[in-house]
Amino acid sequence: MTNGKRMLLGSFFQTFLGHHLAAWRYPETKTEEVTKLSLYKEIAEISEEGKFDFLFLADVLAHNEEDIAYTPQIRLEATTMAALASVTKDIGLVATLSTTFTHPYNVARQFATIDHLSGGRAAWNIVTTAHDHEAANFGLEEQLDHSLRYERADEFVQVTKKLWDSWEKDALLFDRENGIFLDEKKIHPIYHEGKYYKVRGPINIPRPPQGHPILVTASASEKGREFAAKHADILFTIAPSTVEEGKAVYNSIKQKVSAYGRNPEHFKIMPGIVPFVAKTEKEAREKFEQFQELILPQLGIGWLSRYVDHDLSQYSPDDHLPELKDVDQVNGEKGRFKLLSELAKERNYTIKELARYFVGTQGHLFIVGSGEQVADKLSEWFLNGAADGFNIKFPYFPGGVRDFVDHVIPVLQERGIVQTEYAGGNLRENLGLEYPVSQKLEV
Amino acid sequence: MTNGKRMLLGSFFQTFLGHHLAAWRYPETKTEEVTKLSLYKEIAEISEEGKFDFLFLADVLAHNEEDIAYTPQIRLEATTMAALASVTKDIGLVATLSTTFTHPYNVARQFATIDHLSGGRAAWNIVTTAHDHEAANFGLEEQLDHSLRYERADEFVQVTKKLWDSWEKDALLFDRENGIFLDEKKIHPIYHEGKYYKVRGPINIPRPPQGHPILVTASASEKGREFAAKHADILFTIAPSTVEEGKAVYNSIKQKVSAYGRNPEHFKIMPGIVPFVAKTEKEAREKFEQFQELILPQLGIGWLSRYVDHDLSQYSPDDHLPELKDVDQVNGEKGRFKLLSELAKERNYTIKELARYFVGTQGHLFIVGSGEQVADKLSEWFLNGAADGFNIKFPYFPGGVRDFVDHVIPVLQERGIVQTEYAGGNLRENLGLEYPVSQKLEV
Repeated sequence: MTNGKRMLLGSFFQTFLGHHLAAWRYPETKTEEVTKLSLYKEIAEISEEGKFDFLFLADVLAHNEEDIAYTPQIRLEATTMAALASVTKDIGLVATLSTTFTHPYNVARQFATIDHLSGGRAAWNIVTTAHDHEAANFGLEEQLDHSLRYERADEFVQVTKKLWDSWEKDALLFDRENGIFLDEKKIHPIYHEGKYYKVRGPINIPRPPQGHPILVTASASEKGREFAAKHADILFTIAPSTVEEGKAVYNSIKQKVSAYGRNPEHFKIMPGIVPFVAKTEKEAREKFEQFQELILPQLGIGWLSRYVDHDLSQYSPDDHLPELKDVDQVNGEKGRFKLLSELAKERNYTIKELARYFVGTQGHLFIVGSGEQVADKLSEWFLNGAADGFNIKFPYFPGGVRDFVDHVIPVLQERGIVQTEYAGGNLRENLGLEYPVSQKLEV
Repeated sequence: MTNGKRMLLGSFFQTFLGHHLAAWRYPETKTEEVTKLSLYKEIAEISEEGKFDFLFLADVLAHNEEDIAYTPQIRLEATTMAALASVTKDIGLVATLSTTFTHPYNVARQFATIDHLSGGRAAWNIVTTAHDHEAANFGLEEQLDHSLRYERADEFVQVTKKLWDSWEKDALLFDRENGIFLDEKKIHPIYHEGKYYKVRGPINIPRPPQGHPILVTASASEKGREFAAKHADILFTIAPSTVEEGKAVYNSIKQKVSAYGRNPEHFKIMPGIVPFVAKTEKEAREKFEQFQELILPQLGIGWLSRYVDHDLSQYSPDDHLPELKDVDQVNGEKGRFKLLSELAKERNYTIKELARYFVGTQGHLFIVGSGEQVADKLSEWFLNGAADGFNIKFPYFPGGVRDFVDHVIPVLQERGIVQTEYAGGNLRENLGLEYPVSQKLEV
């Protein structure tokens, strides 16, 4: 039924208390624990109980001041994943770090450290940092140009891979008898000199258990998808509205991967979905309406304006969306831009309607229904070749994870479509990805 | 007896398997766990059992290629402390990050994250990164000049403090009823524009539980001590050879702290010591000799050369130390330089003798004896006003921590000189330090 493949599942968490913008007002959401380990530990434990492949921690380097009073925008930083490494056993740990405002030597060490301490469960979600208000925290008036960011990211990732390769995997000897700790011939400087970075190497941490930590990225732009096809193991996407479109996107990305001489089977495409799930469809719909009613009327248009890169406050909320920029001119997140502009046309939404849709889902496909119904929808995408799995964006924490694990996971497990136990290897092995061949660095 | 003060104790660990360079060859050392969480967790747990004030993780950004085959130089990175936050309850967590090769916005977020997740136990050991071979991993031919590094560090720390102050401590409201998550009037951009950094702020993480994470530094240079007196809560020092000298150093530093208008009682001076301890003096001496015999004969002179900033391989090992640079011209660690050059003169050591002393202790005061004897020595320094506590550099892991907790801690506890229980507050409260007043950042 699944051609021997299984559906991958990511447990997306961020410190916004849920993927629905009004989640923090919902009575069962543990809002007061927004900065506490207890909440993240609970999310991690429920996710591991549900045999999710990984936890995914998003990050952004500034908040939007406009709506900060009404929408939680707190982001704990990537080190959070190390804290979860010691309270979990099998689940992968995806942390986000920007290539634009860090240095590859530091980032290579951070992920090598998490990979060692977690026994091979580290993954890096590579971002280039989209917004001007983030750049302002690093001395820039406005963000670097989109294509420049990706050029830099490309070299950055090359350097980190060289650093992880700078120790051969059998370099450590521990020969107490003769006093030889390691074989120094198996450790190599990298002597990298590129356009943006000059790094001698080697790193001062042994090769990570996975060889390289898993590389993840999320981008819908041409440059971003080229970058993903060249470097990444997993691509997060924003699901288009139909399976047919999803399939077209899926196939076009897999072709890009093949064009880089890589096996497309070892590249996983995972759209984000927002599930509102309960015992019955009726209960799920009621819950969804309860969430939508918690959205303050004044919210949404500001958020929407940023994502469509156009100030919508100058129009009446009952107007239709004005003519927008061409997607190539957008310097922010191109994926959401595209989805939102297309959706507005298709459904003939007014600004208010689109804003309401947007704040509830942040532009992601959402599914409201019973466990059976949500499982059907996910299975349909998976079995029709439109996704290798999904990045589940829970509407609220930790209850949204509980709902999914109680109602959806057992159905998918019964259908033999997701794992019922962890295979017991490291993350790379569990995902069925190849061990990376080490580059020859001797000069 | 202790004038109401208690001796502070830091548990120094690094991924070198012990502070003695040959520690990894000792049969009881858990050498094979050098990159494993299990070892660090065990060290953390024994340290917490002994009621140490904090764990201290050193870091350096490169290894020395010369001796790498024979001496472990693996360094896991600062995120390790987040991994230990979730398996400990009360102990402080000091992690090292360099101001020279990171950005203040990132560092402020990293320590704010660890502080939140650990319930107020984070501390930052501020280093400026001393060596050329570290600089080469960040594109520099040689390290920035010593005084330039401290000028930059000064501005760096000012920026991080402003970022931690950018949220007032009662900004979060969680008013579900009215949909008001926080009071936006209590969050302030910092608009920092200095010589090295331009940072708009605010940070996107609430004020850390401790206000500011504890600031730690280790420096023996003039610039470094000025920096410490201005910014730090704790200074690690290298103990001179006598209590009298220790007292003189202690008093001179406390005067500097007063000169900055700060209360010297709220500034803690903690020399590093290496204890070889066992049930009896005889057993301790035997153990020490066993360790010294594990040092390979060819080691030591290279290590020593780096710390005295002079290539000693050109002399006979039986020669005495040649004329060295003036301490002001040394661009590396001035503290160890001073100690070693003074010691060589005082004791009339040959190069070989000094090297052997150095590789065993890395320039730190070491004490060999029974629990009672080690406790006597520490008490003498403490009660005579030469130290507020000690940074204990265990000779091997995890057994060296076990030895200290079994033999020394009970004696000090019985004398009422160290704590027998954690007070239950955050690290700042437990150390008796003041909550930092928030800067007014409104513009």
